[in-house]
Amino acid sequence: MTTTLFDSHKSTLENALKAIHERAYWSAYPEIPSGKIYGETARADGEAAFKSYLNNTFKLDQPAASGTVGSEKSPFGFDLGISYPKPDMNALINAAKTAQQQWKKASIEDRTGICLEILHRLNQRSFEMAFAIMHTTGQGFMMAFQAGGPHAQDRGLEAVAYSYAAMTQAPHQTTWTKRVSKDDSVTLNKTFHIVPRGLGIVIGCSTFPTWNSYPGLFASLATGNAVIVKPHPGAILPLAITVQIARDVLKEQGFDSNVITLAADAADAPITKKLVTNPAVGIIDYTGGNAFGNWIEDNARHASVFTEKAGVNPAVIHSTDNLRAMTGNLAFSLSLYSGQMCTTTQNIFIPSAGIETDKGHLSFDDAAGAIVKALDWLLGDPKRGAEILGAIQNQSTADRIDAVKKDGGDVLRESTPVENEYFPDARVCSPMVLRVKAGDEKLYMRETFGPIVYMIETKDTNEAIELAARCAREQGALTAAVYSTDSNVLAKAEDALIEAGVPVSCNLTGQIYVNQSAAFSDYHVSGANPAGNATLCDLAYVVPRFRFVQSRVPVPAATPAAANA
Amino acid sequence: MTTTLFDSHKSTLENALKAIHERAYWSAYPEIPSGKIYGETARADGEAAFKSYLNNTFKLDQPAASGTVGSEKSPFGFDLGISYPKPDMNALINAAKTAQQQWKKASIEDRTGICLEILHRLNQRSFEMAFAIMHTTGQGFMMAFQAGGPHAQDRGLEAVAYSYAAMTQAPHQTTWTKRVSKDDSVTLNKTFHIVPRGLGIVIGCSTFPTWNSYPGLFASLATGNAVIVKPHPGAILPLAITVQIARDVLKEQGFDSNVITLAADAADAPITKKLVTNPAVGIIDYTGGNAFGNWIEDNARHASVFTEKAGVNPAVIHSTDNLRAMTGNLAFSLSLYSGQMCTTTQNIFIPSAGIETDKGHLSFDDAAGAIVKALDWLLGDPKRGAEILGAIQNQSTADRIDAVKKDGGDVLRESTPVENEYFPDARVCSPMVLRVKAGDEKLYMRETFGPIVYMIETKDTNEAIELAARCAREQGALTAAVYSTDSNVLAKAEDALIEAGVPVSCNLTGQIYVNQSAAFSDYHVSGANPAGNATLCDLAYVVPRFRFVQSRVPVPAATPAAANA
Repeated sequence: MTTTLFDSHKSTLENALKAIHERAYWSAYPEIPSGKIYGETARADGEAAFKSYLNNTFKLDQPAASGTVGSEKSPFGFDLGISYPKPDMNALINAAKTAQQQWKKASIEDRTGICLEILHRLNQRSFEMAFAIMHTTGQGFMMAFQAGGPHAQDRGLEAVAYSYAAMTQAPHQTTWTKRVSKDDSVTLNKTFHIVPRGLGIVIGCSTFPTWNSYPGLFASLATGNAVIVKPHPGAILPLAITVQIARDVLKEQGFDSNVITLAADAADAPITKKLVTNPAVGIIDYTGGNAFGNWIEDNARHASVFTEKAGVNPAVIHSTDNLRAMTGNLAFSLSLYSGQMCTTTQNIFIPSAGIETDKGHLSFDDAAGAIVKALDWLLGDPKRGAEILGAIQNQSTADRIDAVKKDGGDVLRESTPVENEYFPDARVCSPMVLRVKAGDEKLYMRETFGPIVYMIETKDTNEAIELAARCAREQGALTAAVYSTDSNVLAKAEDALIEAGVPVSCNLTGQIYVNQSAAFSDYHVSGANPAGNATLCDLAYVVPRFRFVQSRVPVPAATPAAANA
Repeated sequence: MTTTLFDSHKSTLENALKAIHERAYWSAYPEIPSGKIYGETARADGEAAFKSYLNNTFKLDQPAASGTVGSEKSPFGFDLGISYPKPDMNALINAAKTAQQQWKKASIEDRTGICLEILHRLNQRSFEMAFAIMHTTGQGFMMAFQAGGPHAQDRGLEAVAYSYAAMTQAPHQTTWTKRVSKDDSVTLNKTFHIVPRGLGIVIGCSTFPTWNSYPGLFASLATGNAVIVKPHPGAILPLAITVQIARDVLKEQGFDSNVITLAADAADAPITKKLVTNPAVGIIDYTGGNAFGNWIEDNARHASVFTEKAGVNPAVIHSTDNLRAMTGNLAFSLSLYSGQMCTTTQNIFIPSAGIETDKGHLSFDDAAGAIVKALDWLLGDPKRGAEILGAIQNQSTADRIDAVKKDGGDVLRESTPVENEYFPDARVCSPMVLRVKAGDEKLYMRETFGPIVYMIETKDTNEAIELAARCAREQGALTAAVYSTDSNVLAKAEDALIEAGVPVSCNLTGQIYVNQSAAFSDYHVSGANPAGNATLCDLAYVVPRFRFVQSRVPVPAATPAAANA
């Protein structure tokens, strides 16, 4: 029955497998929010679907509910008013355990086909998801569509492809014959069972609830684990829709839909600690702040823990042959979603002697000023500015701007508000730029999440590279940008930053930005510095989610009915 | 230069890669200790080489030595009198860190070629290794040759093959082109650098110093990590020879030979805790007891830890169509190396109503008695008995026999001594067999390492299966044996035991034993119960030893000189 799903999505899987082995550009799901692709009424339908959730009870036919929970607010200025089932934790875990018994015995093809169908349906509902992402995270609509929809789906598909590759790189049955003497041999039939590590817990964040959750969610599902999704209390809807779609597909295919469940909670009554320390839990995927991520790594020792935490992302500017393109590129990176991306640059290191450019030598002040000017231009058009900036997800991020300003540094640019014509109550702040010296480590050698940028004056380029690498090594970093026309400087920076475990982008200009990470090609998070312990996605991200446990029986002899067939 | 090594061993690697993807029988290194294979004088040369080490200083040109250490005793009754360099820990770690800087930048082919050459030379010295293994572990000569020589080399080669496969499954460079508008595209050159997790610490055990250490040692080396080998104080020589050979190859190929070093210590002045908690350590491979293994898992949190600890291995007997072959097979398994294998059966569960056999129904007592009789027959010939049993590695293992006997249970067979005609002072004990009831959990639901076997009377076969599975789940287990002529019973047992994460062998008779695990086919240790957290060998065993960290640069633009080429 479910073989049909595997067959109908087989070419998608094959392309994805090809992509992860080539890592050139590929995408399964179109990123353009166009009616020509998604259907002429797709946007209107998506918006209507989103609106139907507002001030309503979210329909999720899952067991183990006792009351409801939910108090999401759109960062664009209104309450969503959606209530979700409040889980009875023990009952939910027992339901997941029961469901896993059947799920783990499904064939790899059945599980993979179901995952691919879920992704396909998520893709069809990308507009609905875009509105859900926009009004929980604060992302502008275009970004919400792309990052929360097709890009997230691509990341999920990438995880399915890696899981499939990992489970099928060795056979599940073999016949083993060994000569044990001149005339005698022994033959064994061996079966290699895939045993899931499960249950899998997926802990979502408030800024990228789908993009950051789908890799772990789909990797755990594909490898036979039941999954409990614990969304951030501020961004439940995108994952509730995801779970609803997944449960529908499972049910249609004859599986216990409790293979995937939602465990929503409230900010003032968090359930995550209790959830992740349950002995039935075998896998935890976490995206979020360092403090709680470290707590999980320290306390959920019985499980395989995959974390993407936060970092302090550096940039080093030495020289450029296109000042305008460089500053324009940086300004967009710094502004996109108000710096609320885990990949946004925070610290820009510039030598005190300044930089060489196609417009001649620029002093430190002129170099920093050129970036500020590019920001001012980019955000000067309120329509464009509001779309790029989106809104600030959490009030505490907005509050951080003033707090950080009081800590010190010269203000090169104030975090001016930008008006949003459609949502006048939106929480919109543009990047604040502070100028500090290399010695002011207590100011910049820490994460200041949000629209806050430090321009750091260093003795020279060597010190800039050293401090950037130390940022990554000590504080963690997910991205690093380097600008130089000198291949020796680039090589030196690359060497130091790679050693510090941070992916490096050199001389980006035009429509590619340091904070963008493409599925099937870019390894997102290296696992080699404190910003996280796992890469989205590589083999190391999927292989610990299951084990091979073998049985062997001599031939000829009674063969046990295959227990896991 | 070193490309030559990769080329000259390429067919070995290709065969190994084929083997891990088919998992049928294959071996690179002949297990027959024959002069026709290894050279007519190989045995004499090996023995002479072994003797040349006795009462001498082991020549290892490694730095950071301050004095010597070493007090190995042959379990066959004499002191080895070999002294090894005593390391200055900080200096040794610094030397390894320095060596790693060069090693990690070597090409995958260079590192792989060097690993293959080390294995080739180890194979040529298999007789020398056999004597070193025999007189440190207490294994009989034949077993010492096979398990300590070719089988260990096969396990090392398997790890090299998995490492090579993991490092080459994705490209190291790619060109990525994305259309960003109707007329415009962005092209990036991406480089995916392999960054080792290192340093790697390999902690050897006293019973299988090479077989259990080679997988981790070669996996860490192949993936670019420098390795410090910490042998058990009772079995230093086999790993000292290994390190010596590896250092020779590294030096010949122009590498800093401190890529691999030996850190020998004394039982009364252990260094392992200090070693594994050093912040420079990134990988730890441990084989040994649960207490210290758990300590490492709890305290070396900064590293990737791979453990093979101990377990309580169960057998379930329901029925057989060949009583004589079954009891003969079990007797050999229980006797081989005096039960000092991590894979030896400890607990044999038999229903109180007895078992069905080709000789008719046997009561519990008769079934247990048939196994005891097979033991008596097998070990009745002292020459055969002494070769199978070998000697007891550690006096505490011999002492355990009496202690366990005092704890309770009916003695069905005493641990009689067996005379060794060549080594009259050898510490030789045959298996003691105790009869207990299912309710006597405090006696058998614990590890009693050594020649100690429990025959456990259960209510029925269901209870036997349940207790066997619980053994694995709670105490950990590396093997399980099941005997039944009923395919439903086999399927039920297989299901329960696989669920408990323990590899199952059904109805083994003839020359294949539950305690044997074949490289390239059997997954040794599942990682799915407390007996260990890693499998020797699968992808999960190698992929955490390195990370992909990427750099990307637009085309056309200045390309940095490849830092990791």
